[in-house]
Amino acid sequence: IDNEKEIKNSQDINAFTYRTHTCGELRPMHNGKSVTLCGWVQYQRMSKFLLLRDSYGVTQCIVNNNQINFNDVPLESIVKINGTVSLRPTNMINSKMSTGKIEVVIDKLEVLNVADKVPFNLRVHQKPKEQLRMQHRYLDIRFPDMQNKLRTRSSMLHNMRKFLIETYGFVEVETPTLFCRTPGGAREFVVPTHYPGLFYSLVQSPQQFKQMLMAGGVDRYFQVARCYRDETTRPDRQPEFTQLDIEISFTNLDHIIKMIDQLLYETFTKPLPNPPFKRITYTEAIENYGTDKPDISYDLRFKNVSHLFNNNDEAILSAFVLPYPAELGKLSSKYKDKIKELKQKNNVRVILNENVSKELSNDMKCQIQSIVGENKAFILALGDKEKVCTCLGEIRQQIAVLLQSKELIEINKDIEPLWIVDFPLFTEGDNGLETCHHPFTAPHPEDFHMLDSEPLKVRALAYDIVMNGNEIGGGSVRVHNADLQEKLLRMLNIDASKLMHFINALRSGCPPHAGIALGIDRLITIACDADSIRDVIAFPKSHEGKDPLSGAPNVITEDDKKYYHINIVK
Amino acid sequence: IDNEKEIKNSQDINAFTYRTHTCGELRPMHNGKSVTLCGWVQYQRMSKFLLLRDSYGVTQCIVNNNQINFNDVPLESIVKINGTVSLRPTNMINSKMSTGKIEVVIDKLEVLNVADKVPFNLRVHQKPKEQLRMQHRYLDIRFPDMQNKLRTRSSMLHNMRKFLIETYGFVEVETPTLFCRTPGGAREFVVPTHYPGLFYSLVQSPQQFKQMLMAGGVDRYFQVARCYRDETTRPDRQPEFTQLDIEISFTNLDHIIKMIDQLLYETFTKPLPNPPFKRITYTEAIENYGTDKPDISYDLRFKNVSHLFNNNDEAILSAFVLPYPAELGKLSSKYKDKIKELKQKNNVRVILNENVSKELSNDMKCQIQSIVGENKAFILALGDKEKVCTCLGEIRQQIAVLLQSKELIEINKDIEPLWIVDFPLFTEGDNGLETCHHPFTAPHPEDFHMLDSEPLKVRALAYDIVMNGNEIGGGSVRVHNADLQEKLLRMLNIDASKLMHFINALRSGCPPHAGIALGIDRLITIACDADSIRDVIAFPKSHEGKDPLSGAPNVITEDDKKYYHINIVK
Repeated sequence: IDNEKEIKNSQDINAFTYRTHTCGELRPMHNGKSVTLCGWVQYQRMSKFLLLRDSYGVTQCIVNNNQINFNDVPLESIVKINGTVSLRPTNMINSKMSTGKIEVVIDKLEVLNVADKVPFNLRVHQKPKEQLRMQHRYLDIRFPDMQNKLRTRSSMLHNMRKFLIETYGFVEVETPTLFCRTPGGAREFVVPTHYPGLFYSLVQSPQQFKQMLMAGGVDRYFQVARCYRDETTRPDRQPEFTQLDIEISFTNLDHIIKMIDQLLYETFTKPLPNPPFKRITYTEAIENYGTDKPDISYDLRFKNVSHLFNNNDEAILSAFVLPYPAELGKLSSKYKDKIKELKQKNNVRVILNENVSKELSNDMKCQIQSIVGENKAFILALGDKEKVCTCLGEIRQQIAVLLQSKELIEINKDIEPLWIVDFPLFTEGDNGLETCHHPFTAPHPEDFHMLDSEPLKVRALAYDIVMNGNEIGGGSVRVHNADLQEKLLRMLNIDASKLMHFINALRSGCPPHAGIALGIDRLITIACDADSIRDVIAFPKSHEGKDPLSGAPNVITEDDKKYYHINIVK
Repeated sequence: IDNEKEIKNSQDINAFTYRTHTCGELRPMHNGKSVTLCGWVQYQRMSKFLLLRDSYGVTQCIVNNNQINFNDVPLESIVKINGTVSLRPTNMINSKMSTGKIEVVIDKLEVLNVADKVPFNLRVHQKPKEQLRMQHRYLDIRFPDMQNKLRTRSSMLHNMRKFLIETYGFVEVETPTLFCRTPGGAREFVVPTHYPGLFYSLVQSPQQFKQMLMAGGVDRYFQVARCYRDETTRPDRQPEFTQLDIEISFTNLDHIIKMIDQLLYETFTKPLPNPPFKRITYTEAIENYGTDKPDISYDLRFKNVSHLFNNNDEAILSAFVLPYPAELGKLSSKYKDKIKELKQKNNVRVILNENVSKELSNDMKCQIQSIVGENKAFILALGDKEKVCTCLGEIRQQIAVLLQSKELIEINKDIEPLWIVDFPLFTEGDNGLETCHHPFTAPHPEDFHMLDSEPLKVRALAYDIVMNGNEIGGGSVRVHNADLQEKLLRMLNIDASKLMHFINALRSGCPPHAGIALGIDRLITIACDADSIRDVIAFPKSHEGKDPLSGAPNVITEDDKKYYHINIVK
C-alpha cells in the first residue's frame, strides 16, 4: 500500500483518541519518541516484524525481545502498540513507504479485537469481484483507494460548502424528503402512513421546496440533498442519490453558469480549464455530435451535407457525415456489424467510406470530399434529422474507440466541462406535449410568441453541464409568474390542483429565480477516476436496488401491515 | 422590521444577481452612487415613499417626479429599482433602521412579479396563528425572525463541519436511508418496492452504518444525517429530523465528552460555560431531580430521607423531600390539584408542607426540617424509589414555575449543558430485559461480572447531554466484540440472524469505538430561543405528521398500488 495520504499538519487527527500518532505520520524527526499506535495487523514475518496499518499509512513495528509474541494474532486483528521510534538501518530503508525510514520498537502490544479469517486479503492489489466487495463492504473500504475516494468526497463537498457559504453568502436549508407526489417526472417511492390509504412520496428533488424558499426570501439557497427515484432498472443508478441543489433569486442564465464555472474551477480536485467553460446550443450539440452530452475530449464532429441532397432550402432529407482520419483504413467486420445494428435501430441509411463509390455518384462523392477534406474518410447517414444525428453520434463513439486503439486520434486527458443551452421546452410524447426538463422551466423570451402556435419550436431557458460525455448537472431559469405556470401545466396536461400550494407561492410575490442541481455521485466519480458511482458511495445498492449487506428490501411483519393498512398482492 | 442582519463584508452577497446591493447595506458612504435594488414592496405612502424589503433589510425609496407611479402595485409585489443613493434630510433620519440615514431616489421602477392579496401582513409584529403560518410557509419565512433562524441553522451547522473537518480531520460520509429494519427501537417507516412483499425501512439513525465504517477504517466519521421515526403521536416530534452523527475509533467515554464540550463551546451561538461541562450520574440525576434530563437553570434538589423511614440499611421504603423557600406560602388549589394528579399517576404517597404536622410525628418533622434547613418548606414523597423520584421531579417543575412567577427563585438565563453518565444497561420490560439506549451499547467494565447474575445492576458506557431540561444528544461506547454483542442480543431476545452483516463486521477486525448523536433541530431551537422545533425547520409537518402546504400524505394511484403489489385495507 503505497499511496498513503499526506497528513495535514493543521489537523489534529489524533485528538480524542488514545493513539499518539497515525500509522502514516512517523518520520526520522520522531526518532527516540515514545508513541502509541493503533491499527490493523497487515502482515507479519519471522515473529519479529509486524506491519501495522490504519487509514493514514503503514508502520513497520519490530520486537527486540522474546516476551512479545504476535504469532497467533490473525491478520486484520486490531492491536494497540506502545513503542519507541527508531531509525531503520540504511539498508532497510523502504523508499516506497512514507514511513520507510523509521520503525517502531514494540514495548507493549495489546490485542484489542481478534479478527476472524477475512474473505479477501487487503494486501493484494487486484481487487476481488464487486459482488464480494459489496457483501463485505466494511472490509472493502479498508482498501486505500476506497479510503481515498470517501475522503475526497467529504473534502470536495466541504469545499463546495465553503465556496457557497463563506464566499458568496448562501444559506443551506434542509427540506423534507417525505412529501406529496410531483406530477410528471420519475417514479417516486411511496411511504405508507398509519392513515388508511394515505402515503407520502419520497422526493425526487427539492425542486418545489427551493422555489418556495425563493418566494420566502431565502434568496441564495443550496442544499446537499438526498433524492430518491425508483429507477432501479437503469444501470449505474441508485434508488437514493445526492445532488448539490442551488437556487438564486434575481438572477439569470448567464449568472448561474458563471457561478457553477467558478464553483467547479475552485473545488474540483482535478485541474479544469480557466472559466468560462465552453458553451454550445442543443442544436449545435446534436448537429455536431449527435447527443446532448457529447464527449469532446477528442475532436470528431459531423458536417451537415443536407444541402447536397435537397433541391430547395427546405431540407426534407437530412444528410450528415462523420469525417475521420483515412489512415484508419477499412473497418473490421466486428465494427461493421455494430454500425449495422445502430443503423437498423435508428432506421436511417448509412453509407460507410468503403461503399461511397458504389452508392454515391462521383460528383456527390467529390462534393462531400471537398467539404470534409481530402485526407479524410467519412461515414454518411441519411434520413430524419434527429435519427441521423443520433445514429451518427453512436457511430462516433465506436469510431473514437477504434481510432484511439490505433493512436490515430488525440485524446485530451484533461477534463473539459461543456455547457449545453437552448434546449427545446417541449418534446412530443405519446399523449401530447411533454416537458424536456421539468414543468417549472421558463420559455426563452425570444420564442414566447410561438408558445401557442408552434410550441415544439420554443426554446427553454435550460442548461446542462457535461463532463467528457457525462451529464453532471442541469438547471433552468424557472417560471415565476403564476399565470404562465398554470398555462404551461395545462399545455402539459398536468393537473394544477395538485400544485396549488406551489402556484400560490408564485402568486404571493415570488422573485424571478433560477437554479441548478449537480449530480454529486457522478461528479465525484469523475474526480476520483472511479469506474462506477458505486465506488464513491460508502454503502451502495446493487443494480437491482438490493442492499448486498443486509439483503434489504425484506418482508415486513404482520403488525406493520396492519399498522399501515396494507396487504401484499403477489 | 428592525433587526436587519449585519452584512459580512467578506461575503459577496450580490454576486450572480442583477442587484448591486441588498436592501440592508446602503449607508451614507454610498451617497451619490447608482444602485439597483430588488425586493418586496413592504409599504408605500403618499405616492412618494416606497419601503423596499429583502432578507437583509429595508431601504426607503422615493420618487422626485410624477413619471413613476407605484400606487397600483400591491404590497408584497416584487420590484426592481434603479436609483441613486441620497442622504436623508437630518429631520428624516430613522435611527431604528440600519439604512435610516439614506434613501434611494428612484430613476426606474420595474415590477417583476405582482403579488395577490396575501393572507397575512408581513409588517405586523404579532404573528398569525401557527396553522395559518404553516399553510403559507413561503410567506411566513419572510418574517425577519424566521430568516434569522434558518440562517443561524445554516451557519451553526457549517461551523460544526469546519470544527470537525478542518480542525480535527473528520470525514463526512453519507449513508443510506433505505435499509433493513433495525431490531428494537422506534417504529420505522417502510417503503414498498416493485418486488412483491419486499420493503425497505427508512433508517431511524445511521447507527449500523457508522459502526461498519469504524470496521472499515473511517476512524473519524460524522454526518449531518436525516433520520426517520414514525412517532407522529408524540408532541413536538417530526417524522423526519436531523442529527449530527459522530463516531470515533480508538477512543473512550471521556474523549467523546471532551470533544462534544469543545464542539458546542466553539459553535453554539450563545455563550456557554467553559468546558468541561458538568457531569452527574444517572443515579444522581434521579435522586436529585427525579429525571434524567433535569433543568438545572434553577437550584431545587431533593434530599433523600429514606433512612428516617427505615430501621435497617436496606431501604424498603424510599422517602425524598423537595425543599423550597418557605416564603411561597400555601399552594393554591390549582397547584394542589396538579400535585394530586401526579401523585395518583405515579402511585406514591405525597405530603404537602401544610399537611406535614397532620401526617408526620413531630419528631419526624423536626428531623426532616433539620435536613432541609429551617427556612425551607418541603414536600415529602414516599414509596417505590423510582416512582417517588419521578413524581417529585414532576412536582419540582410545577413548583419552579410558581417560585419563578413570585420571584422567589433565581433562574440562570445562561445555558448550562449537563452530562448524564452511568445509565443502566438494561431496564425491565414486559417481556424480559430491554435496552435503555440501544443494543450496541457497551456494559461498564466494572460491572461486567454482574452481566449474568444481576443484569439490571449493570451500568452502560452511555451518556446523554442535556440543556436546560432538554436532551440534546446521547451516545455510548459501543460493543466491538462480536461474541459479547451476540450475548447481549440473546439477553435482549433480539434475533441476531437479522444482524449478521453487522456481527460479521465486528468479527472482521473492528476497532473499539464510541460515538454520539446530537439532535440538531432541538439544539438550534435552544440556540434561537424558538418556541418549537417547527420554528427552526423550513417546512415542518404538523403534529399529526401532515404537510400543511401540500396536504401530504395523499392517496396513491391504482398504477402505484399495482406496481408496488399492495392493497389498502381500510
